[in-house]
Amino acid sequence: MAGRLVGSEILKIAAAIRRLKAEGADVCDFTVGDFRPAEFQIPDALRDGIKAALDEGQTFYPPSAGTPELRAAVLRFYERELGLRYPEESVLVAGGARPLIYGIYRAVVDPGDKVVYPVPSWNNNHYTTMLGARGVAVICGPETRFLPDPEALIAEFDGARLVCLCSPLNPSGTALTEDALRRICEAIIDENRAREGRGERPLYLLYDHIYWQLCFGDTRHVTPPALVPEMARFTLFIDGISKAFAGTGIRVGWGIGPVDVIKRMSAIIGHVGAWAPRPAQLASAALLDDEDAIASYHAVMKVGISTRLDRLHAGLQALREEGLAVDSIPPMGAIYLTVQINPFGKTTPDGAVLKTNEDVRRYLLERAKIGIVPFQAFGVPGDDGWFRFSVGAASLDAIDATIPRLRDALQALR
Amino acid sequence: MAGRLVGSEILKIAAAIRRLKAEGADVCDFTVGDFRPAEFQIPDALRDGIKAALDEGQTFYPPSAGTPELRAAVLRFYERELGLRYPEESVLVAGGARPLIYGIYRAVVDPGDKVVYPVPSWNNNHYTTMLGARGVAVICGPETRFLPDPEALIAEFDGARLVCLCSPLNPSGTALTEDALRRICEAIIDENRAREGRGERPLYLLYDHIYWQLCFGDTRHVTPPALVPEMARFTLFIDGISKAFAGTGIRVGWGIGPVDVIKRMSAIIGHVGAWAPRPAQLASAALLDDEDAIASYHAVMKVGISTRLDRLHAGLQALREEGLAVDSIPPMGAIYLTVQINPFGKTTPDGAVLKTNEDVRRYLLERAKIGIVPFQAFGVPGDDGWFRFSVGAASLDAIDATIPRLRDALQALR
Repeated sequence: MAGRLVGSEILKIAAAIRRLKAEGADVCDFTVGDFRPAEFQIPDALRDGIKAALDEGQTFYPPSAGTPELRAAVLRFYERELGLRYPEESVLVAGGARPLIYGIYRAVVDPGDKVVYPVPSWNNNHYTTMLGARGVAVICGPETRFLPDPEALIAEFDGARLVCLCSPLNPSGTALTEDALRRICEAIIDENRAREGRGERPLYLLYDHIYWQLCFGDTRHVTPPALVPEMARFTLFIDGISKAFAGTGIRVGWGIGPVDVIKRMSAIIGHVGAWAPRPAQLASAALLDDEDAIASYHAVMKVGISTRLDRLHAGLQALREEGLAVDSIPPMGAIYLTVQINPFGKTTPDGAVLKTNEDVRRYLLERAKIGIVPFQAFGVPGDDGWFRFSVGAASLDAIDATIPRLRDALQALR
Repeated sequence: MAGRLVGSEILKIAAAIRRLKAEGADVCDFTVGDFRPAEFQIPDALRDGIKAALDEGQTFYPPSAGTPELRAAVLRFYERELGLRYPEESVLVAGGARPLIYGIYRAVVDPGDKVVYPVPSWNNNHYTTMLGARGVAVICGPETRFLPDPEALIAEFDGARLVCLCSPLNPSGTALTEDALRRICEAIIDENRAREGRGERPLYLLYDHIYWQLCFGDTRHVTPPALVPEMARFTLFIDGISKAFAGTGIRVGWGIGPVDVIKRMSAIIGHVGAWAPRPAQLASAALLDDEDAIASYHAVMKVGISTRLDRLHAGLQALREEGLAVDSIPPMGAIYLTVQINPFGKTTPDGAVLKTNEDVRRYLLERAKIGIVPFQAFGVPGDDGWFRFSVGAASLDAIDATIPRLRDALQALR
């Protein structure tokens, strides 16, 4: 198994950029779905809470499913903010969102099982490989803002064990509409009613909404059980502090779902040992209960993200109007902008012909010192020139510098 | 897979004790391999280092293999303290030691592979179950202080993919001798030379020495590559701050081994996402470089542990001399004492006959409010009355209270 598994492409690109920076290059880095402290920091309440927990000696093992404080706070938070009510045994805490996704795969997917996921999406290809599952990628394009057309997704439900959705979506920064999600949920319920009659295992929905607090403009986040209450039995939520509170390096995530699946995930994650540090669990619990602290944090942080996304989008649209081979999709959420750069067939000053997304990525990194991730890293097969720009680690100055750099690089092509 | 997996027995016993304590019971709790802040805290340098890293905004993603600062510090630490030299790519950081053990199993063991481990030992039975491996338990008894007789272990090497050792040993608190470890290492080298000739995959040694800094009295910790240099190619070290620095809830561990295996482990742990929090990685790096801080911390902490172990051992030996069905093995390392309590066939005041370790465990918890873990939790099949007493969360007062409570409970039997 380990021999077949490859490290995440994004992390590889990030490592290349780290090397460039170490050599002194001024890189406009839009690669990693992360934050830079100069741009975004965790809430003061979270940082102070961790420090206070350390001072209190809260440095011993947390219970393997998470501290009761955090599990209870997550439930209050979900009731208050999302209108969802769950019992405490429905919550499982782990060291970030990623171990929970892995835990869901391990808990419900056996080797050979069918897993359906739209692409672009994050790492589902890797998890299906790890599990020896049969992954079915439903390819999404710009006409649906890179989100799944419900009917195309539903067409693959037959025989599937797990369907994976993410909204707002990493990598596109676009969000599912209420209508689309409702249609998908109703189809899952129909499918599972039919399976129940046949004595078959149900279809589960992995619903990764780690970015749900980061919706912009008119975008309203929707959840499966809020639209179709019976979906509570089949929905496995992924969430945490990593993105909404800029705490990727703090390692606190949680999953919510039906108690039987959560119990199995808990046994797995218990042995894997992917636990969140105790001080951060206690501080996260206090933060989730502190409506004012969250509101004042997001009043600044969300404006910071959306300003970056909007400015980048506007700059790219201006290049497009200049006739350059650039486009972008209006941002809706998360920390990402979907950008098309497709000067295919053109020749670089070094005499190389740009044929693939990877050619474009390398050219822009070398020539313009712009670091971006092609959609291939998210499972998309074609070379259509689509890229993810992540703005969490980018300053407004870097964004302003990116547009002329990109213009120069594209104008240098023949 | 998830259906077959059971949560760790120790965690289940711990949960029962938490409930008793919540009801107000005064439990002398020797169950979890953990620390209580009233007894043992992390080093000041570690706590202050985490707080400083938080203040500096070091809250973003660490590289998935660990920060370069910590990887380099681990190598300096191993050269300084253990005389071992490795390249940086040999070190992998994770969120505690447990994910690294899981990573080793996933990286080198395929379903059906043979894994050899002595029992009692910690969780190897669970990991072999998770992997669908064929676990071969080599049963060890009090005559070898619950450590493997080298010849009995070596007899199982044929066809094995992984052999797992731990020293000082959880649960026994006893340590491998230099002679025993050298004999085992030489046999691994012989085995692998023969395999190389036949073009077969090598036998790896998982060497969990997470307690190595906690050796007491004359006990000297030994490592495979220090005794047999060629073992560097086949040894996978497990280590971290959890036990030696009382930081179980901080979640920083590291593994060291041959670069090819570490690379595969890194790909796995990267996708599992079991990463150590960034602030704690930076603080751990600084701590490992600070010889004085470690020395002054251990001057207090190790004395605290060994005093508890010695006092418990002395009290139990006194009960033994009184003719009660109690014995214990002199402590050598870690935070554990191996204790035999075998009043089998006797009847409790409630009229129950004590037949198994589990009967004794429950009786002592209910009657004497003493919480202990039977060796069955570490894979030992027989009911011989052997238990693990963990002292990291026990006060000297609790230890002093335990002896008369145990005497009363045993004297109440008929």
